[in-house]
Amino acid sequence: MKYQLMKTSIFTFFALCAALCMNAQQITGFTTEAADRQIALEKQFDASLSAENLDSWMQKMTAQPHWVGTPFGEENAKWMKKQFESWGYDARIETYQVLFPYPKVRSLELTEPGSFKASLTAVPVEGDPFTAQGEALLPSYNAFSRDGDVEAELVFVNYGVPADYEMLEKLGIDVKGKIVIAKYYGSWRGIKPKLAAEKGAIGCLIYSDPKDDGYYQGAVYPEGAFKNATGVQRGSVMDMPLYPGDVLTPGYAATKDAKRLKREDAPTITKIPVLPISYADAEPLLKALKGPVAPSDWRGALPLTYRIGPGPAKVHLKLEFEWKLQPAHNVIATLKGSEFPDQWIIRGNHHDAWVHGAADPVSGMVALMEEARAVGELARKGQGPKRTLVYCAWDAEEPGLIGSTEWVEDHLSELQEKAVAYINTDGNGRGFLGAGGSHSLQTMVSEVAREVPDPQTGVSIQERLLSRNAANGRDKEFELYALGSGSDYTPFIQHAGIASLNLGFGGENAGGEYHTIYDTYPHFKRFKDPDMSYGIALAKTAGRITLRLANAQWLPLDFKPWKKTVSTYLDEVMETTDKMRKATEKHNELVRSRAYELSADPKKGIAAPKAKAMVPYLDFAPLQNALTKLDGEVNALSGKEFSSLSNSGKKALNTLLMKTEQQLTSKDGLPRRSWYKHQIYAPGFYTGYGVKTLPGVREAIEQRNWDEAQAEIEKLAGTLESMADHLKKINALN
Amino acid sequence: MKYQLMKTSIFTFFALCAALCMNAQQITGFTTEAADRQIALEKQFDASLSAENLDSWMQKMTAQPHWVGTPFGEENAKWMKKQFESWGYDARIETYQVLFPYPKVRSLELTEPGSFKASLTAVPVEGDPFTAQGEALLPSYNAFSRDGDVEAELVFVNYGVPADYEMLEKLGIDVKGKIVIAKYYGSWRGIKPKLAAEKGAIGCLIYSDPKDDGYYQGAVYPEGAFKNATGVQRGSVMDMPLYPGDVLTPGYAATKDAKRLKREDAPTITKIPVLPISYADAEPLLKALKGPVAPSDWRGALPLTYRIGPGPAKVHLKLEFEWKLQPAHNVIATLKGSEFPDQWIIRGNHHDAWVHGAADPVSGMVALMEEARAVGELARKGQGPKRTLVYCAWDAEEPGLIGSTEWVEDHLSELQEKAVAYINTDGNGRGFLGAGGSHSLQTMVSEVAREVPDPQTGVSIQERLLSRNAANGRDKEFELYALGSGSDYTPFIQHAGIASLNLGFGGENAGGEYHTIYDTYPHFKRFKDPDMSYGIALAKTAGRITLRLANAQWLPLDFKPWKKTVSTYLDEVMETTDKMRKATEKHNELVRSRAYELSADPKKGIAAPKAKAMVPYLDFAPLQNALTKLDGEVNALSGKEFSSLSNSGKKALNTLLMKTEQQLTSKDGLPRRSWYKHQIYAPGFYTGYGVKTLPGVREAIEQRNWDEAQAEIEKLAGTLESMADHLKKINALN
Repeated sequence: MKYQLMKTSIFTFFALCAALCMNAQQITGFTTEAADRQIALEKQFDASLSAENLDSWMQKMTAQPHWVGTPFGEENAKWMKKQFESWGYDARIETYQVLFPYPKVRSLELTEPGSFKASLTAVPVEGDPFTAQGEALLPSYNAFSRDGDVEAELVFVNYGVPADYEMLEKLGIDVKGKIVIAKYYGSWRGIKPKLAAEKGAIGCLIYSDPKDDGYYQGAVYPEGAFKNATGVQRGSVMDMPLYPGDVLTPGYAATKDAKRLKREDAPTITKIPVLPISYADAEPLLKALKGPVAPSDWRGALPLTYRIGPGPAKVHLKLEFEWKLQPAHNVIATLKGSEFPDQWIIRGNHHDAWVHGAADPVSGMVALMEEARAVGELARKGQGPKRTLVYCAWDAEEPGLIGSTEWVEDHLSELQEKAVAYINTDGNGRGFLGAGGSHSLQTMVSEVAREVPDPQTGVSIQERLLSRNAANGRDKEFELYALGSGSDYTPFIQHAGIASLNLGFGGENAGGEYHTIYDTYPHFKRFKDPDMSYGIALAKTAGRITLRLANAQWLPLDFKPWKKTVSTYLDEVMETTDKMRKATEKHNELVRSRAYELSADPKKGIAAPKAKAMVPYLDFAPLQNALTKLDGEVNALSGKEFSSLSNSGKKALNTLLMKTEQQLTSKDGLPRRSWYKHQIYAPGFYTGYGVKTLPGVREAIEQRNWDEAQAEIEKLAGTLESMADHLKKINALN
Repeated sequence: MKYQLMKTSIFTFFALCAALCMNAQQITGFTTEAADRQIALEKQFDASLSAENLDSWMQKMTAQPHWVGTPFGEENAKWMKKQFESWGYDARIETYQVLFPYPKVRSLELTEPGSFKASLTAVPVEGDPFTAQGEALLPSYNAFSRDGDVEAELVFVNYGVPADYEMLEKLGIDVKGKIVIAKYYGSWRGIKPKLAAEKGAIGCLIYSDPKDDGYYQGAVYPEGAFKNATGVQRGSVMDMPLYPGDVLTPGYAATKDAKRLKREDAPTITKIPVLPISYADAEPLLKALKGPVAPSDWRGALPLTYRIGPGPAKVHLKLEFEWKLQPAHNVIATLKGSEFPDQWIIRGNHHDAWVHGAADPVSGMVALMEEARAVGELARKGQGPKRTLVYCAWDAEEPGLIGSTEWVEDHLSELQEKAVAYINTDGNGRGFLGAGGSHSLQTMVSEVAREVPDPQTGVSIQERLLSRNAANGRDKEFELYALGSGSDYTPFIQHAGIASLNLGFGGENAGGEYHTIYDTYPHFKRFKDPDMSYGIALAKTAGRITLRLANAQWLPLDFKPWKKTVSTYLDEVMETTDKMRKATEKHNELVRSRAYELSADPKKGIAAPKAKAMVPYLDFAPLQNALTKLDGEVNALSGKEFSSLSNSGKKALNTLLMKTEQQLTSKDGLPRRSWYKHQIYAPGFYTGYGVKTLPGVREAIEQRNWDEAQAEIEKLAGTLESMADHLKKINALN
């Protein structure tokens, strides 16, 4: 009886507490009462979302291939514009004229030993009629490969990343005058031809090895989700780490009458011809290689001995493209804010696809549309946003973030004046939340992720994500990843300095359809997000974030996690330098003691490595001092009561908050790639999509360019100082 | 001119120094003058070694297959006996009657889905006539599999080691009533059927995956050294971790009239039928499996999706053996010591092979013979050994160390009285020195390894080995590895407590010929040690060690490295316990917080793991105190001047030194396997060949058997205490 009583009273206590907590829920940027209203609004928003819409819209938008310039792509854009209008948005199509290559001639042959002609064509599969659309399917190729007609010995270069060329050097193998064959993965694809060309290769093949992307991973399409022997990943190889967007109009919009570079002067077109191929087409080429057996971590899952060459395999690669200006149609739909119409929350997803693009990008696009529809419905009921919402459907993302980049370049000064934040989505599927972006937004995203339920387990998407981190031995703390590149946030954050996010679900949606003819509605429904429940989860997540940014009394930026993250980056960079120094000392000691030489197999004729120049000590003090200064301002800021500011103080606060991310940019941008203005996040010059944080400093160190490293330390310190000054202004508000 | 002068004087200085150093060379166990004589002797020994002998003897001994019981095996034994005699040895053949199964019926079929009959036969290859000897080749099988006729669904179990069954449990897959298919490698092969039977499987297939042992590693035979699709590794699956040697006579010699167990009572014959197969035969079976995709580290290099099953693949396995007593012929050749005839240095290598056995064991056997010949030559010139040398060529090593085990069991008390040390060799090839054994011999082996030149680089074999360690980021210090099992040292060290060594070269002799029909003279000459220079290096190394042990004034045992090594083992065991405790706490916390459950893909139906019983704190103090006591004695011993002992003191010293290794054994042996007496080194109960140091304590901890762990700590502490007492006796000598 006593025990029973106790249980009851404990239960009562927790129930009470839970009820109290519900009422007392805090949302950054809102007073308590405003938070209550916002939460009620979000409940209505959730209730109005429908998975059936996602499903039927996906079927409509993926009926035919729709890469930039296709009639079906234009039809999709027009249809979306109408949809947005029907939901109460002001919608328009903003069109740019962008250079886009269509593959006219694609030929690849093994000319020695024996002969083999690559088919370069994925087969239609049973049960998926979309794969049988024949001529309508875009032939597999790498956009922004140059034209070329080359014949040379072949060299297998693993993933074709810098570490692989170091290994080749150790093995005494030079790719000069050769054609390289690299596996997909290990870096963004565009790095492979870029590096190969730097090393003197005259052509580049990229293939999908079944180990990374085929039967090794699971049953292949149509039996399972993975890449069959004929599937080929398309994709851009434009040198996006230099600048993305239209190759002929760097830094300005590709309007009809814009002044354009000559194609031969466009620096982001590859220096050598590149072609992606399937593993069925790669196998005879790899089989024909001799020379040293590839290191074990280079080997894939084809049934052969992976060898490096060069030769005796010789291949002939011929590529010709039709280089034409094509119209890229961005759909821009606006819902005017009731209180702050000149503060914009921008939300985007691209609509162009390499082929049908059910997963990439339509799964994200339809979630965005359903979100916009529900938001429009709320507005119609008198619950419109306080700030202006701008929903965007970008064209020409696939060939190089072209639609979004041209739009940002076109509207740069207005955006830098009015944009609060940009929220990006792209392909989406079953699994775990992935959220990256500006770390000043981390607290806000974390608050949202605590509320959206995971469709499969019922716990919050945050709890599910952190459970996975914990089970994998990682910290159980919510963190945004840093943005590199690979989707349309790049022009916003890295060029314009607008706080950005990238959101999506995945991890339980593995497959080999990416950029192939197999990324279709039937494939998506079987393997990606069968009931569209993760599309709905995405709409709930991105929608909440959009609505909170739109309605917040003061913009929900929190600089504590931002500061912590930047400190971590600095620690990493300093640690990297120390490790490089120690590794260099160790290496040189091993060179001196002949350890490499004596341990190498004399029959393999491996050249002993040479001593390296020592790593100097760099002066990191300017950065450390700037961070100390930031510490002071960030701490002061987090003690500040924004709710008690005067009305004019609040207005000034939001204006200052909107501009914080811009403090992190520099006019000159990064060395040798001035388009990239952001000093905290950038895609790596030699990783492509992979992010480099504190990029100016970090890349100089990685490249052992010590003078530049020291100069970049000072430049970055200046950037951080001006961020501190900016925060000081906020602290001074009253 | 000045510069020239300086150079000269520096040269003179170094030359002088080198000359002085040469004269002052220290060898453990020798006075300075005796060391000089010994070094001169070793030079003569080196000079007399001939690679041509190795080559011609290998050709002779590998002309036909010669497993135990074959006429050619007996012919080899008789021929070797004659050889030893011609070199001045007393030689005899000691024969035991040992149970050996010959495969009469071997049949393996896939019965569902479809049908496939495994060929179970490796193909002859061009350029190697030995592979075409047809019926004369021993069919591929696993010796000491029981007979059986079973049909069941198949389950792929990776390497079939304990961690794999833990994974299967996580995946909810049971092997009860199934036939398992395991890859070779990951453990000694005999562990696979042992564990499978413990888990309820009714049959076991073992195959060589091309990833571990085939085209993934390099070109296959005859193009290259690696295993082609049809090659099959033979090998024993006798439960050697229980006891090795004749299965019917555990712990005593298999003499003609010995009392024998009934075959059905022999505990070291497997509980279920086992058959090794090629990857050509495995591929259709693996392809027919469905069920979950295997974890990525389970997957091999066959061009298929590795799945676990169970089924739908169903196989029928039928095995019948001819179980017969066969004569095992050990050749024992003795060269009597001039001063200490009752102190024996024993040197052995086996002579039986699964097929031709050019690498395994003949490459080691011929090096031993050349060593014995050169030693005999020295003796003929009046420079015979002070102690008695016993050169042994063991029969029936392959089926389970049978020849050597029976011999040790037969002569146990005499050996424990007279044996100083046992030095083992086996297959040998191009590369680096591998030396394992009793750590009291480490200093002596290190001294030898500093003097033998590496044939390819000219530096010492020690410097080459340590260069490789350094280049791989490991300590640059010479260490013996600890002996597990896998060759004929096992009965000597682990049963009789005789200090032992195992020596061989390798690492640049990779190939897939091990225990197949491809381990032939042509294969050896192309890929293993083409000019037999590493055979000569082995003769120089093992010969030096033998001659130093034979001629030392006091036996060259050094307990400092021994003590250091044992302390390291204790640290490891304590650390392991702490790590298990922390991992268990972490695991239970993740179970409580539902992290595993929430992070698992709900569509995969993986059962969430359960909480584990906590790891208690064990009382390691008895071991720590025993080691402290040992520290005192070892330190005292290393300050002691043996050269100034009286003659009777020296005699007593050697008698005590001979017995030190026996102090490390216990009469009762290890739990559940009393044949294994040594308390520091044993083959792992669930690893097979893989060593477990401090095995009683370590395995109890690994099996979470805490009461036994505590009991074994106390038992081991007693052993170490008696070692300390024994060393005290040496310290008391004068």
